[in-house]
Amino acid sequence: MLFKVEMVVKLPLDMPKALADEIKTREKAYSQTLQASGKWRHLWRVAGSYANVSIFDVESNAELHELLFALPLYPYMKIRVTALCRHPSSIRDDDK
Amino acid sequence: MLFKVEMVVKLPLDMPKALADEIKTREKAYSQTLQASGKWRHLWRVAGSYANVSIFDVESNAELHELLFALPLYPYMKIRVTALCRHPSSIRDDDK
Amino acid sequence: MLFKVEMVVKLPLDMPKALADEIKTREKAYSQTLQASGKWRHLWRVAGSYANVSIFDVESNAELHELLFALPLYPYMKIRVTALCRHPSSIRDDDK
Amino acid sequence: MLFKVEMVVKLPLDMPKALADEIKTREKAYSQTLQASGKWRHLWRVAGSYANVSIFDVESNAELHELLFALPLYPYMKIRVTALCRHPSSIRDDDK
Amino acid sequence: MLFKVEMVVKLPLDMPKALADEIKTREKAYSQTLQASGKWRHLWRVAGSYANVSIFDVESNAELHELLFALPLYPYMKIRVTALCRHPSSIRDDDK
Amino acid sequence: MLFKVEMVVKLPLDMPKALADEIKTREKAYSQTLQASGKWRHLWRVAGSYANVSIFDVESNAELHELLFALPLYPYMKIRVTALCRHPSSIRDDDK
Amino acid sequence: MLFKVEMVVKLPLDMPKALADEIKTREKAYSQTLQASGKWRHLWRVAGSYANVSIFDVESNAELHELLFALPLYPYMKIRVTALCRHPSSIRDDDK
Amino acid sequence: MLFKVEMVVKLPLDMPKALADEIKTREKAYSQTLQASGKWRHLWRVAGSYANVSIFDVESNAELHELLFALPLYPYMKIRVTALCRHPSSIRDDDK
Amino acid sequence: MLFKVEMVVKLPLDMPKALADEIKTREKAYSQTLQASGKWRHLWRVAGSYANVSIFDVESNAELHELLFALPLYPYMKIRVTALCRHPSSIRDDDK
Amino acid sequence: MLFKVEMVVKLPLDMPKALADEIKTREKAYSQTLQASGKWRHLWRVAGSYANVSIFDVESNAELHELLFALPLYPYMKIRVTALCRHPSSIRDDDK
Repeated sequence: MLFKVEMVVKLPLDMPKALADEIKTREKAYSQTLQASGKWRHLWRVAGSYANVSIFDVESNAELHELLFALPLYPYMKIRVTALCRHPSSIRDDDK
Repeated sequence: MLFKVEMVVKLPLDMPKALADEIKTREKAYSQTLQASGKWRHLWRVAGSYANVSIFDVESNAELHELLFALPLYPYMKIRVTALCRHPSSIRDDDK
Repeated sequence: MLFKVEMVVKLPLDMPKALADEIKTREKAYSQTLQASGKWRHLWRVAGSYANVSIFDVESNAELHELLFALPLYPYMKIRVTALCRHPSSIRDDDK
Repeated sequence: MLFKVEMVVKLPLDMPKALADEIKTREKAYSQTLQASGKWRHLWRVAGSYANVSIFDVESNAELHELLFALPLYPYMKIRVTALCRHPSSIRDDDK
Repeated sequence: MLFKVEMVVKLPLDMPKALADEIKTREKAYSQTLQASGKWRHLWRVAGSYANVSIFDVESNAELHELLFALPLYPYMKIRVTALCRHPSSIRDDDK
Repeated sequence: MLFKVEMVVKLPLDMPKALADEIKTREKAYSQTLQASGKWRHLWRVAGSYANVSIFDVESNAELHELLFALPLYPYMKIRVTALCRHPSSIRDDDK
Repeated sequence: MLFKVEMVVKLPLDMPKALADEIKTREKAYSQTLQASGKWRHLWRVAGSYANVSIFDVESNAELHELLFALPLYPYMKIRVTALCRHPSSIRDDDK
Repeated sequence: MLFKVEMVVKLPLDMPKALADEIKTREKAYSQTLQASGKWRHLWRVAGSYANVSIFDVESNAELHELLFALPLYPYMKIRVTALCRHPSSIRDDDK
Repeated sequence: MLFKVEMVVKLPLDMPKALADEIKTREKAYSQTLQASGKWRHLWRVAGSYANVSIFDVESNAELHELLFALPLYPYMKIRVTALCRHPSSIRDDDK
Repeated sequence: MLFKVEMVVKLPLDMPKALADEIKTREKAYSQTLQASGKWRHLWRVAGSYANVSIFDVESNAELHELLFALPLYPYMKIRVTALCRHPSSIRDDDK
């Protein structure tokens, strides 16, 4: 089941660089684990913004919440979730 | 080069069903041709709305405009375009 | 899987009353069938508006879209969908 | 008398974890007491957000205000209240 | 129990004047009956707009909805409802 | 001359409780003096918010500004002012 | 007593030109009468829009409403009213 | 050439009063110099807000920017600029 | 003197194609005359929209209004105007 | 390929002047290098705001992101990107 998830990150301007780097490193590792598992299906940068557009493929709303809630950058994010479903004109089998 | 394109369709309430069906049939054929060509990379329905979330893969802004402008449903759509680029944490080769 | 669905209805001011009544009668029957099946779990009127707040319990985003798309009043509605999940403080077993 | 109440929580990023935990523990206990009493009828998490959708069943606007004002997380919340009433198509006796 | 109700009226530009006058006459009579009963406690014009700010005093959300739904101008209105309660600093006994 | 005034209060989360209490005490006294004088005609709490809906009865815009500007909580408020006038359907002599 | 009044005009696209011209002619005459009387103190066009920014000098909110309500273009306008008062730094005697 | 300029001031809540007073004193002097020169043609307080509505009469956009940028309160302001021009119905020679 | 002008066009869905074509032909000719004169300095299409971003170089707000008001598509446009001036970091002599 | 980029700068009110000056100096140098290279084609100040309107000419969305992300003022900016393309009525060869 697919969801579009849009995340905008806003780190405090006075966050020490070492802390920011450490969080970003954990975020990247976490994100890549979820991508490898197929749960985080797509991840794109929005040009010009510290933001991304993502597609998640999960079993349920609850699983989606758990995955997002565990993001290392979660406390610094605004997240918008949009439930998607197969489009009747789609020709891609996995855009279910 | 990737763009997120979000389309919301609003047909006039008094449009004859035959006309609406004819336009939708052309829209579907056009959309599937673009999907087959790889230009319209993803197409999802927004649950509960006559709207979609799409990913286009085009050579330029100009090509994107031409493809969208030629949509049979174009006169009845609100379209929002967001320029995307590769995310540094992405592990998918083609989410460029 | 639960979703909050908020529907605002706007009938054309010049819709013949007989037609409006006929659509509303079908809407009511359809809504009550879905409520009886457990899919449309709650349905409340927003005080002062031709609008409702509903809770749907469905298997997937796709099922939610199908149920909403088949509403007799669908062409006259604005619909907003919000994915819900169990709250860690909830004590109701079925507010999953 | 039913109200939809939507609460979005925003804790200061520099709040000590011990304090945050202590407030959340009190919030959970308070919320469960109200749920057990029937005043806080439903409580759902919004997927992807530190936010909830709730249904309150109270005697009056004044009682609603008192219950919300006493939330341990109240100073950190944005709260939106919507007055609900029975929908003429509802088949649930208690969705009054 | 008090509610602030804000109503904005938008008549179709091509509504025949006789029809508009007839609806307005019924609206005025209905409004004055409710004012006389104490249900529609205050009614003010917003300067420069075809809109009003009103205070209703009703037994329940349901009663409020019934009263508003029966307004002759209801199909032409946008209505916003805000639940009020006694302010702890108020010195007026009936601003309950 | 009547104005609807809507005030939303936002105290800094780190304001010492003693200071907050002192300001609120002055606010209450000031508000009750204005109410007793007839200038602050109505004062209601918005259910679920640290906000009020008020009706002021003043000689001029300038007097309104002076009264609001002197509110002890003024630096912590968002204030919206709406000019009101007698509604042609009103039956209350003093809702001028 | 001064008010900023902002008016945006939207004539129906299918209004016959003769009718539009007739309304505009009456609007101009009415506006110039009010300007000559001192009630409509300033009138500027917003560059690029069928809109104006005006300053009215009236005795009361009620007088302001009457003057605006009588505008020949009133049914085609969106009007926003802002109550003004003398600025403590103003050096113009009549910007009261 | 005329511009409507709307300024909303927001001083930090913890700014020392002496500093705030010093900035305001300079602001007032600066504003009165510009008013005397004819550049800052009108200046009104918005009732109930720390905000003003102003009319500037300048040679160019660049001059407008320079004048505003030099405001002592500039770092604490939100400023909105609207280009104005003579209204065809205006009867005041200097509302050019 | 430079202005950014953003125009969004919305033709009525039932406008006869011949009429639309005739207006567009006149719009194009008018636009090209202004471009040739240097008044309409830049003109770009917004990708995916019937909209443009333009830069005008005019003597005054009044001239800008006259030029825009004379656009054949003016009655079908939403226009937003932003006053620009030379940026202190600009190295282009004519981006004045 | 052209993009309109709108940047609004908001420096923390308590940033030391020396630091602000140092960042602005680097920003200016960076901006002028990009302008000289042709990548940052136009740069205008918005009158009355610490904001600019820019036109970028880049090879791809990715290049645009890299250029913007490297702005010394990037952490203090809100940036909005709009994809542009040649307008069919344009007569300038390089407004591609």
